[in-house]
Amino acid sequence: MEYIEIVYQIRTPEGEVSAFAESVMVEQSIETPLTVAQRYPFVREHMLGQIRSLTPDGEGGYRAVIALPTITASVDAAQFLNVLYGNASLHEEVVFLDFELPASVRDRFSGPRFGIEGLRRLTGAYDRPLTCTALKPVGLTVTELADLCRRFAEGGIDFIKDDHYLGDHPFCPFEERVRACQQAVNDVAERTGHRAVYVPNLSGTPDEVFRQAAFAQNEGVGAVMAAPMLLGLPFFYQLVRDHLDVPVLAHPSFAGATRVAERTLLGKIFRLYGADAVIFANYGGRFSSSQETCAGIATTLRAEWGAVRPAMPVPAGGMSAQRSAELTAFFGIDTMLLVGGSLLEAGEALTERTRDFMLSVEQAALEQAKA
Amino acid sequence: MEYIEIVYQIRTPEGEVSAFAESVMVEQSIETPLTVAQRYPFVREHMLGQIRSLTPDGEGGYRAVIALPTITASVDAAQFLNVLYGNASLHEEVVFLDFELPASVRDRFSGPRFGIEGLRRLTGAYDRPLTCTALKPVGLTVTELADLCRRFAEGGIDFIKDDHYLGDHPFCPFEERVRACQQAVNDVAERTGHRAVYVPNLSGTPDEVFRQAAFAQNEGVGAVMAAPMLLGLPFFYQLVRDHLDVPVLAHPSFAGATRVAERTLLGKIFRLYGADAVIFANYGGRFSSSQETCAGIATTLRAEWGAVRPAMPVPAGGMSAQRSAELTAFFGIDTMLLVGGSLLEAGEALTERTRDFMLSVEQAALEQAKA
Repeated sequence: MEYIEIVYQIRTPEGEVSAFAESVMVEQSIETPLTVAQRYPFVREHMLGQIRSLTPDGEGGYRAVIALPTITASVDAAQFLNVLYGNASLHEEVVFLDFELPASVRDRFSGPRFGIEGLRRLTGAYDRPLTCTALKPVGLTVTELADLCRRFAEGGIDFIKDDHYLGDHPFCPFEERVRACQQAVNDVAERTGHRAVYVPNLSGTPDEVFRQAAFAQNEGVGAVMAAPMLLGLPFFYQLVRDHLDVPVLAHPSFAGATRVAERTLLGKIFRLYGADAVIFANYGGRFSSSQETCAGIATTLRAEWGAVRPAMPVPAGGMSAQRSAELTAFFGIDTMLLVGGSLLEAGEALTERTRDFMLSVEQAALEQAKA
Repeated sequence: MEYIEIVYQIRTPEGEVSAFAESVMVEQSIETPLTVAQRYPFVREHMLGQIRSLTPDGEGGYRAVIALPTITASVDAAQFLNVLYGNASLHEEVVFLDFELPASVRDRFSGPRFGIEGLRRLTGAYDRPLTCTALKPVGLTVTELADLCRRFAEGGIDFIKDDHYLGDHPFCPFEERVRACQQAVNDVAERTGHRAVYVPNLSGTPDEVFRQAAFAQNEGVGAVMAAPMLLGLPFFYQLVRDHLDVPVLAHPSFAGATRVAERTLLGKIFRLYGADAVIFANYGGRFSSSQETCAGIATTLRAEWGAVRPAMPVPAGGMSAQRSAELTAFFGIDTMLLVGGSLLEAGEALTERTRDFMLSVEQAALEQAKA
């Protein structure tokens, strides 16, 4: 019989932790008194979990490794989450730290369809970090956004993503915006030979998002962005599997992950559900993320994991264009550096500042190669 | 100009809290340096938020009321969440406590289509709490589940919901299960006149869930269950709006993963997105919820809110059938009491214990009416 191993942090007093871990194991499998479950041979033999280990974690809590049968988790993309941390999330004493899948379950997910290698192929850049910027703020007209897009493309940037607040607004309708921005990168490509990848943001209900995906791809966009936790992971999963032929950048909005370890939610689950690149709040910017958390997310996204392709880490959130060297040294070159406001502050000099940013990234990669 | 008022708890030192609140306001609106935003008149006039108040909360943090323009939030069901607590969720210093909507935004959502009144109409019970039980554990065959369903129905219970671990399993396929369980309640209705409402669990990607919804309704089920946080709220929203003609019970699985005050997530957001009844982890059972939290959820679900119908609170999670009087006194009669394991423990005496439970609920309602 095969099991998913789930690692929880449990914060209860020492005298209660064994019974509590047992109750969490029951909650995440049969959710029924054991006396009831024992009556049914199939349930007794196939549905019960095991506590593999329960050890003090050195932080006043316990680290519990609970093995749950794959039979429930593997039935659909919502049940998978349900078994990992469904009702257990309702126990404030329980934090979801990590999980390990047997190959049979892992391989039910296709994971990133492009991953790091596919994103590099799209840009032709193999020996430096990839770069990304954002079209913002929300409130700009289609013409203003397309103009920013053109100037970023002229500056040589790799990816130009919509701000995640860009929806299908009356003052900036999705279809007009996508057409104009894609046209802008096409024009620059014709004139200069540099083809930036425009990445529209998809947002709404399944019917709206699937329609947006079809429209954008028909217009020739090279990638799209979506926020898996805003949309819902099973919805994101179907978007990727059934509606996309281009890579997808995952945005972390609503992922507010204090009760799921960030490296697990963003690094493993987003990747498993198909994100080719995952944006996260980096250290030293607007967010208080630690270097350790960021390194953990990046390492997890790129870790060997059977046939699941590595996904591209995208540190973001108030990054300045001056940090190319530091961030390249920290994350290595299999990274996409996302810099928005710091470029936009250049105003009329946007193209030039973008060019400087690209030069600094190339320089950083050279230094990294020498080191 | 209209605003959504959002209440956050902010946990930063006193000297930093003003600047931090300002940065959260920017994060949740333009997410761009103010110097950049100021260049665009439309952005300056229509996209910026305001800090309405910032006061110590007596718990070592601050209560910030931030007003954000409705223009972004109201564009789709994902952007609404994005504006409420998208990137702000990535700040570990920020907890999302509450929000107030202007009527124009609130009325874009249809909310519960049936609500408390519609659920009562379905059962014909107007003067006592409604009752609900669960078909479980996962691992039972279709025949075993249908047999439980029949016996619960014979016991006179109002609603019989699938366990939330019931997916489209090979050992218990969705379509066979729904057909057999609905047949079981139909048979009991013919024989006894009591028509219990069977509530199948919908789970999976949008295409799977929409197909399940169509099948179940075609079989004549009286309601369905889904977990909005597992599916994703915009997906849940479309399910309710476009694919359901029967009431929906919202299951809280995965809802504890976010740092959102429970009364707000379960009480306001689930209701706004269309849940007719909302299951939550009750005090005094398997979960450590406080009475205050539970009362808050119930009060919020039932509060007057313009044209948004009141939704039914469903306390659950290790409730015993012996607590009818206490729970009815605590929650009042506009409540659905969900008791699963405590009935299932009766084994062969399931029908009788269910009958006893129903009698205790009727008795509790009588006492409540006298009090």
